[in-house]
Amino acid sequence: MKLESLHDLYLSELSDLYSAEQQIVKALPKVIKHTESPELREALENHLEETRGHVERLESIFEMHGESATRTKCKGMEGVLAEGDEMIGKDAPAAVRDAAIISACQRVEHYEIAAYGTVRTYAEQLGHEKAATLLQETLEEERAADEKLTSLAEERINVEATRTA
Amino acid sequence: MKLESLHDLYLSELSDLYSAEQQIVKALPKVIKHTESPELREALENHLEETRGHVERLESIFEMHGESATRTKCKGMEGVLAEGDEMIGKDAPAAVRDAAIISACQRVEHYEIAAYGTVRTYAEQLGHEKAATLLQETLEEERAADEKLTSLAEERINVEATRTA
Repeated sequence: MKLESLHDLYLSELSDLYSAEQQIVKALPKVIKHTESPELREALENHLEETRGHVERLESIFEMHGESATRTKCKGMEGVLAEGDEMIGKDAPAAVRDAAIISACQRVEHYEIAAYGTVRTYAEQLGHEKAATLLQETLEEERAADEKLTSLAEERINVEATRTA
Repeated sequence: MKLESLHDLYLSELSDLYSAEQQIVKALPKVIKHTESPELREALENHLEETRGHVERLESIFEMHGESATRTKCKGMEGVLAEGDEMIGKDAPAAVRDAAIISACQRVEHYEIAAYGTVRTYAEQLGHEKAATLLQETLEEERAADEKLTSLAEERINVEATRTA
């Protein structure tokens, strides 16, 4: 893929995110299966649904630009998910594993917050207003998912996990 | 490494960050070398200095807990840095490469914002006040570095990069 202009970089980052989102759709069901807390499971199930919507939004954006939706293997997300997978495979009390799952998921969310913030700004600066609006919508959902995980951790899961110490 | 308690998880995450920070110290000089904008170079040089301080803070925290500073290869950071390395190796006009460097560095910063937010909260909830204060200081430096990159991108680098389109 050429990088001759900001538009090329924008498309390259969209492809990276298109791969990242699909990796998440594939990884989340296993994570959900290992979750003990019903509130955490519900939050992750809702986010899996949202993530499927993010894939569709990216497809709409590629279409707007007359490009076919292509993936460039997102090595960043691959690393973050591999690390999370290692954590959930460990032998741990349920509340500690739930805390570890939240930690891993917040790394995923923050990767996406950085990436969507970047492509949203590129879209704005390149004058792609409709794409910028869609990317902003996804960015807000990623931020809301991250905040939901923070409040679950601080108010419930970590508190339970400290009782295992 | 066992995960029998929140304290075990806390130590495991500190080891992950200890590896992540050292990977960044190793990777940043090459990134800086490929940077064209003097402001971006200066921001990254300052952050490299700060990152060395983050490594030392983590060593102090391990010492506080009577633990030797150990690294657990941080696969998340490895993936994020591998992706960034691929981007800077591409043939691109200087302003576009600078924009790509900022994008990669913001993914690094956000990984760290998620990870430090998590361990700072664990430290608070486990009653390790001094460690929590040190982790909060690093967290604030990561956030400030991320904001600096956002303003450099929005006000200068991306604007120049759009002129290459």
